[in-house]
Amino acid sequence: MYRIITIGREFGSGGRELGRRLSEKLGFAYYDQEIISEIARRTELSEQYVQSVIEHQPTFSFPIHIGKSFYPAPTPVFDQSMAVYQEQARIIEEMALRSDCVIVGRCGDYILKKYNPFRIFVYADMESKIKRCREKASEEEKMTDKELKQHILGIDKKRSKYYEFYTGHKWGDKLNFDICINTSRTVIKEIVPALAKLFEE
Amino acid sequence: MYRIITIGREFGSGGRELGRRLSEKLGFAYYDQEIISEIARRTELSEQYVQSVIEHQPTFSFPIHIGKSFYPAPTPVFDQSMAVYQEQARIIEEMALRSDCVIVGRCGDYILKKYNPFRIFVYADMESKIKRCREKASEEEKMTDKELKQHILGIDKKRSKYYEFYTGHKWGDKLNFDICINTSRTVIKEIVPALAKLFEE
Repeated sequence: MYRIITIGREFGSGGRELGRRLSEKLGFAYYDQEIISEIARRTELSEQYVQSVIEHQPTFSFPIHIGKSFYPAPTPVFDQSMAVYQEQARIIEEMALRSDCVIVGRCGDYILKKYNPFRIFVYADMESKIKRCREKASEEEKMTDKELKQHILGIDKKRSKYYEFYTGHKWGDKLNFDICINTSRTVIKEIVPALAKLFEE
Repeated sequence: MYRIITIGREFGSGGRELGRRLSEKLGFAYYDQEIISEIARRTELSEQYVQSVIEHQPTFSFPIHIGKSFYPAPTPVFDQSMAVYQEQARIIEEMALRSDCVIVGRCGDYILKKYNPFRIFVYADMESKIKRCREKASEEEKMTDKELKQHILGIDKKRSKYYEFYTGHKWGDKLNFDICINTSRTVIKEIVPALAKLFEE
């Protein structure tokens, strides 16, 4: 049985950096954008389209976790969202069964529940998320602080809706994680050795 | 400047065990019941009475953090609650300035804010909190599961009210902590070495 670490994260909290560094330290496989690429390859949809589907909650009024076999999918858009989600779940499961791994985002904690993953959630206060976004050279750099805050809140709102739609759980609720890490006052690089120690045999 | 670790915890989550083990591993002083004893000694109130005051929110309708200098204390009971809280704050600060330390509960994270403590919150799901309580031979052992659940919820409700009254913050809100640890699927003894690594120089 391989060891699986899943990472949920608020936008700008450095969850991706933490996941990448942790996987490097442990020698575990790391899956993040790779999941999107693989979905795109298998579904023959573009990566951009897959990304946009994953970032939006399907336009269907019943959450998927409630009686999912009873309600027919009403629209082609919904069909495609569901197809992408199902493909994603399949791919994540395959990845987790292949080797020790770190999986960032994409409901990994829920999809892999039966394999008992170690579930990390990474978060931070708004001030430090803004600071972290500013430090990366990216599209966010042209925004004012106010715009950037709205941008961060907007992305997390989508993540939250997506997660709740597919899992029925509240996104970021600490009871759904084994450990929650606040990066506001932390240098991620410095806490990774301690975190890695949780998994060293 | 000494290193300070504060631990907030849900009743039955093993926060006290985690704090004690962490302090032993690091060679830090450990303060828990010692705080009560010291308040009792200084105020000449009994330990039982101090404990009961600390477990109850003062009967005053304005939270202490709002305009505390404007509202006169209206009752002797309130006076005594405030006196105990202030003595507690003084003692906790003295302890933190004496050596590296681990302080369990009692709004330590808030009282010591200016010293930048590392703030841990320990929590668990109800099932494992009930199990943990059952494993300790204590007054809870005669209770049914339903009674025990009510007992656990009741204690945490008091802690929550107490914390919110004195700090103005929501008890257990992950943004007020640097790390939150779910002990539901964890053997505390096994995660302490990893946690300790966060503080090793």
